[in-house]
Amino acid sequence: MTQYAAPTTDMKFVLNEVLQISKYSNLPGFSEVNEELLDAILEEGGKLAANVLHPINHSGDKEGCTRHDDGSVTTPKGMPEAYDAYREGGWQGLSFDPDYGGQGLPNVLGLAVSEMMSGANMAFAMYPGLSRGAANAIHAHGSDDQKSKWLPKMIAGDWGGTMNLTEPHCGTDLGLLKSKAVPAGDGSFKVSGQKIFISSGEHDLTENIIHLVLARIEGAPEGTKGISLFIVPKFLVNDDGSLGARNGVSCGSIEEKMGIHANSTCVMNYDEATGYLLGEENKGLKAMFTMMNEARLGVAMQGMAISEVSYQNGAAYAKERLQGRALTGPAEPDKPADPIIVHPDVRRMLMDQRAFTEGARAWIYWTALHGDLQELAEDEETRQKADDYMGLMTPILKSYLTEKGYWHATNAQQVLGGHGYIQEWGMEQFVRDARIALIYEGANGIQALDLVGRKLMKDGGRAWQSFFAEIDEFVADNQGNDELAPFLDGLKLAKERTEEATQWLAANAMQNFNHAGAGSMDYLNLFALNCLAYAWAMSAKSAIEKKGEGDFYGNKLVTGKYFLERILPDGAAYLEKIKTGADTMMALPAEAF
Amino acid sequence: MTQYAAPTTDMKFVLNEVLQISKYSNLPGFSEVNEELLDAILEEGGKLAANVLHPINHSGDKEGCTRHDDGSVTTPKGMPEAYDAYREGGWQGLSFDPDYGGQGLPNVLGLAVSEMMSGANMAFAMYPGLSRGAANAIHAHGSDDQKSKWLPKMIAGDWGGTMNLTEPHCGTDLGLLKSKAVPAGDGSFKVSGQKIFISSGEHDLTENIIHLVLARIEGAPEGTKGISLFIVPKFLVNDDGSLGARNGVSCGSIEEKMGIHANSTCVMNYDEATGYLLGEENKGLKAMFTMMNEARLGVAMQGMAISEVSYQNGAAYAKERLQGRALTGPAEPDKPADPIIVHPDVRRMLMDQRAFTEGARAWIYWTALHGDLQELAEDEETRQKADDYMGLMTPILKSYLTEKGYWHATNAQQVLGGHGYIQEWGMEQFVRDARIALIYEGANGIQALDLVGRKLMKDGGRAWQSFFAEIDEFVADNQGNDELAPFLDGLKLAKERTEEATQWLAANAMQNFNHAGAGSMDYLNLFALNCLAYAWAMSAKSAIEKKGEGDFYGNKLVTGKYFLERILPDGAAYLEKIKTGADTMMALPAEAF
Repeated sequence: MTQYAAPTTDMKFVLNEVLQISKYSNLPGFSEVNEELLDAILEEGGKLAANVLHPINHSGDKEGCTRHDDGSVTTPKGMPEAYDAYREGGWQGLSFDPDYGGQGLPNVLGLAVSEMMSGANMAFAMYPGLSRGAANAIHAHGSDDQKSKWLPKMIAGDWGGTMNLTEPHCGTDLGLLKSKAVPAGDGSFKVSGQKIFISSGEHDLTENIIHLVLARIEGAPEGTKGISLFIVPKFLVNDDGSLGARNGVSCGSIEEKMGIHANSTCVMNYDEATGYLLGEENKGLKAMFTMMNEARLGVAMQGMAISEVSYQNGAAYAKERLQGRALTGPAEPDKPADPIIVHPDVRRMLMDQRAFTEGARAWIYWTALHGDLQELAEDEETRQKADDYMGLMTPILKSYLTEKGYWHATNAQQVLGGHGYIQEWGMEQFVRDARIALIYEGANGIQALDLVGRKLMKDGGRAWQSFFAEIDEFVADNQGNDELAPFLDGLKLAKERTEEATQWLAANAMQNFNHAGAGSMDYLNLFALNCLAYAWAMSAKSAIEKKGEGDFYGNKLVTGKYFLERILPDGAAYLEKIKTGADTMMALPAEAF
Repeated sequence: MTQYAAPTTDMKFVLNEVLQISKYSNLPGFSEVNEELLDAILEEGGKLAANVLHPINHSGDKEGCTRHDDGSVTTPKGMPEAYDAYREGGWQGLSFDPDYGGQGLPNVLGLAVSEMMSGANMAFAMYPGLSRGAANAIHAHGSDDQKSKWLPKMIAGDWGGTMNLTEPHCGTDLGLLKSKAVPAGDGSFKVSGQKIFISSGEHDLTENIIHLVLARIEGAPEGTKGISLFIVPKFLVNDDGSLGARNGVSCGSIEEKMGIHANSTCVMNYDEATGYLLGEENKGLKAMFTMMNEARLGVAMQGMAISEVSYQNGAAYAKERLQGRALTGPAEPDKPADPIIVHPDVRRMLMDQRAFTEGARAWIYWTALHGDLQELAEDEETRQKADDYMGLMTPILKSYLTEKGYWHATNAQQVLGGHGYIQEWGMEQFVRDARIALIYEGANGIQALDLVGRKLMKDGGRAWQSFFAEIDEFVADNQGNDELAPFLDGLKLAKERTEEATQWLAANAMQNFNHAGAGSMDYLNLFALNCLAYAWAMSAKSAIEKKGEGDFYGNKLVTGKYFLERILPDGAAYLEKIKTGADTMMALPAEAF
C-alpha cells in the first residue's frame, strides 16, 4: 500500500529561506508566525495527513459514497471520524478572519496545510476545501448579518459549503443557465433548478451544508448579466443559530466517476428552496469568481500534491524492487539484482517529477504569498502588484500544475511496472484522482483562454510587464554569483522566449483572434516554464547560501540543474508552435471531423 | 454512450495508395488480395467491430470478469457470444499459414483487422490476440507434430492461448525466474511454479487454453541461459484430438486493475502440470521473443486504435455540444451558443490527435508490410532489410504509439469537460484501458533501452543506416514536387536531428553507458518523429497525386501540415535533452529519493 509523509523539510525551505516569510512580520497574521509555530503547524498537519487521512485514501476510493433512497449520502468508512479530527484540530480556520473564529494566519501557510491534506487524501480534502471557498465568498460579498450568521459555524467546520454553477446544458458558458430565483416577499428568494457535478453536495460529515447557488432572478436580463448568487442552506437556520426546517434542496443522484470516489459528486435539485441573495443582484458571476480564483489555486495545488505523493511511492518502490543490473556494472553484487533506481530511465521519471514538484511548490507558495500581500501589504503599490500577480498566475498555475501533476502521477505509476496497474498498489488511484484537476474549476483550455484573452491585456499588460521587470531585477542583482549563473542563464532564456511569444501574439491576435486561441495552451506552458525557471533560480540562490549545511541543499541544486537540462528545453517547441498560428489548425470544416 | 466506426477509408488509403500493396501481387498471400476482397474484409471486420464488439465495451468494463471458487472464470455478459461471432467469421486465421487452416493473407491486413477489434473493444481483442501470438510461437518453434496437434484448433479459434513470463519477483528481469520443469520420463515435463499478470489466463470463451510457459529445467544454468519454453494445455489432448484430463494448471485469482476489466488478468498456478518443450532446451527466451516482438507491434497498434476511437467520440461531442461563441464572432447565431469545435483549443486537441493517429497508422502498417516482406520477399536483400526494419521499429512503435495514444485518449476525454470524467460517457474507460499498453510486453523504458542498447548497434548499425538511406532516396526522388516540399523539409529536419542524436550517443555512450540510458527515451521519441515525418511525407505524396478526387485528400494534406507545424517541433527539445547526458540525472545518491 501507499504511504504519505508530508514534505515538511521542503515546505520550510520554501517558506523560510526562499520566501523568507519572516520579512513580513510587520503584517497582521505574519506577526504571529515564528519558527516554533510554523514547525508545530507543519508537524501536526503532517501527522493528521499521514496517520489519519492517508490510511483511508485507498479504502475510500474502493468503497465510494453511497446515496440512500431518502437522498442522504454516506461517505466511506472512516471519513466522518477523519473529518472530526480535522475539525477538532481547528484546521478549517487556520487562515480565516479572527472576527469569525479563524486564526488569521497567512494564506500561504493555509496552502501548505492544504497541500498535505490533498496529497494524503484528495477526495477528503475537497470537503473542507469547498467549504473554505464558500466561506471566503460570503466573507467577501456578504452583509455583516450574513457573515455573522453563516461564517462562525463554517469556519469551525461544523457546517460545510459548496459551489453550484454547472447545469446539464452549461458548464463553461454560464450565460446559458436556467435556474430561477423568485422573490418570496420577505427579502428571501425561492430558488429552483438543477445543478450537476456538485462536489461535496451532500454528505454525512457536517450538520448543515451551505450551498452557494447561481440562479437568475425572475425578469433578469439574459446571458451572464442576469445571474445572481444565493446562499441556500440545507437546513434553514433560526435566529438563535439553531437548525430549523429542511430546505427544498436535495441530492438527486451521485455520479460514478473515474476517481475521487470518496467525494460525493451530486446532482442537486432545488425546488423552491429558500435562498438569500449574496452580494448584488445580477452580479453573481463576479462574486462567484472570487471563489473560483481561490478554488483554481487550490486545484493547481492538488496537481502538485498528487505529484508529490506519487513521487514518494514511486521512489520507494524504485529503491526496493530488484530487477536487472546497472548499465555500468552491478551496484549491489551481493543481491540477485540491483534496485531499479540504478537505471537511468527510472531516474529520469523520478527526477522529472521531483524537479517539477519542488519547482511548482516554490512557485505556488510564492503566488499564495502574494495573495496575502494583496490583502495586507501596507503600500498600495505592493498590493496592486500582488493583485496583478495573482490574476496572472492563477490560470497558468491551474493548467500547468494539474496537467503535469497528472502526467507525473502516470510516470510514478510507470515506475512500478505491472504493479502500477493493479488497484491494490494504489498508484493508479493517484492517476484517476489527479485526472479531474485538469477539468474542474474551468477546464485547462479555459485557463489558457483566460490568460491570453484577459490576463495578458488587462491594464495594458501591467501584470506581465511587472513580472518581467522583477525577473530582470533578480538577474541584475545576482550578477557575479558564479554558482547561480546557469540558473540566471536559464531564466533569461525562458524570459526571452516568453517575450518573443508575447510579441507574436500582440502582433497577430488582433487581425485574427484565433491566432491567440490557437497558441493559448502552448503560451501558457511557455509562461509556466518562465515562472518555474524563476522559482528554481530563487530556490538555487537560497540553496547556494546554505550549501555547507547538509545534503538537502546540494540535492536541491542538482534537482534544479536537472530542471534546466531536462524540462526547460520544452520551451523552444512551445514557442515554435505558437508562431504557426491558427490557419492550419482551423482549416478543416467541422464536418471533416 | 460511445460509438465506433472502423476508419476503413483511411485504412484503404494507407494500404492501396501509400503502401500500394498491389505491387506485391507476385508474393503468396498478396496474390489473392484484390480490391474487392480488401473491401469485403474491411467492411465485414468493421461491422463486427462496430455492431458486436463495441456495444459490449462499456458494459464489459463495468461488469469485469468473475472468478469462481473452482478457479473457473466467467467473462462479462455478451463476451462469449461476441467471441463466437469472431470465431465463426474465421477472423482468427486471416493471416495464418493455410497448412494449419489459416487463410494466408498478408499480416498487414491482419493488423488492419486487429486495429478494428482493439479500437472497438480492447479487452475483447486481447483474447484472440494472445492466442495468435501463442500460435505464431508454436508455428515458429514447434516440431511438425506439435504444429499439427495444436495449431489447427488455435487457428480455428476453438482453443485460446497465453504467454506466461512474469513471476511475483520478476517481470523485466526474467533471469530471476523460479518456475521449474522436471522431466516426466516420457518426453514431457512436469511444470511447477506461479505466474502473475497472465492476460486471458482463464476464461469461458474457448474449450481449451494453450499456455506457453517459461520455466527452468531441473539442473539448468542460472540466469537467462537456463530458461526453456513449454506448451502447457489447460486440458490434455488425446491422440485423436479430443480433450483429455484437466492438467495441473489453474487460476488462483484475478487481478483488480485500472482498466481492461473485461480481460481476465490471472495469477496462474502450475502444480506438476504436464508440459511439452517448445523449441530447444534452455533457449526458451529466444523462442518467447518471437512472440514478444509480434505482441509488441500489437500493443503499439492498441495505442493507435484507442487514439482513433477516442478521437471519434471527442470529435462527435465537439460538433454537438453548444457552449460559448467563436472568438471571431458567432458561427451559428441562430443557436444559443456555438458548437465547441469552433474553439481553437478544442481543435488543437482534436487535430493533435488526428495528426498523430493518421501518421501512426501509415507508419505501423508500413512496418507490418515489412513483416510480410521479411517472410515472403523473393530476394535476400529485401528480406534482410525488412527484418532489420522490424527489429528497429518494434520498440519505437511500442513505446511511442502507446504513450501518445494514452495521452491523446486523455485529450479526447478533456474535450468532454466534466462529462469526460463520468463513467457512463465512456471516455474515461479509453484512458484506463490505454494505460496498460505503456506497461505490458515490456514497459516503455525497456523499449527505449532495447533501442539504444541493442537495435542501434546490431550489425554495425545496418538497420538505421538503411532506413536513413531510404529517406534520402525518397527526398531525392521527389525533388521538384513543390507541394510536397514542406513535407520533405520536415523529413530532412527530423532526420538531421536524429542523426545528430545518434552521433552524440555513439560518441558518448561508450565512455559511460548511462549516457545512452539517460537519453534513451528522448532518443526513441526523436526517432519516432523521424518515422512519422516519413509516414506523413509518403501519405502527402499520395494525397497530392489524388487531390482532385475528393475532400479526403485535401483534408489529409491539412492534417499532415498540422503534424509539421505542431508535432514535429518537439524534436528540438528531445535532442537538447539527450545531449545533457547522464551526469545530473544520476548525481543524487539513492537514499536522497
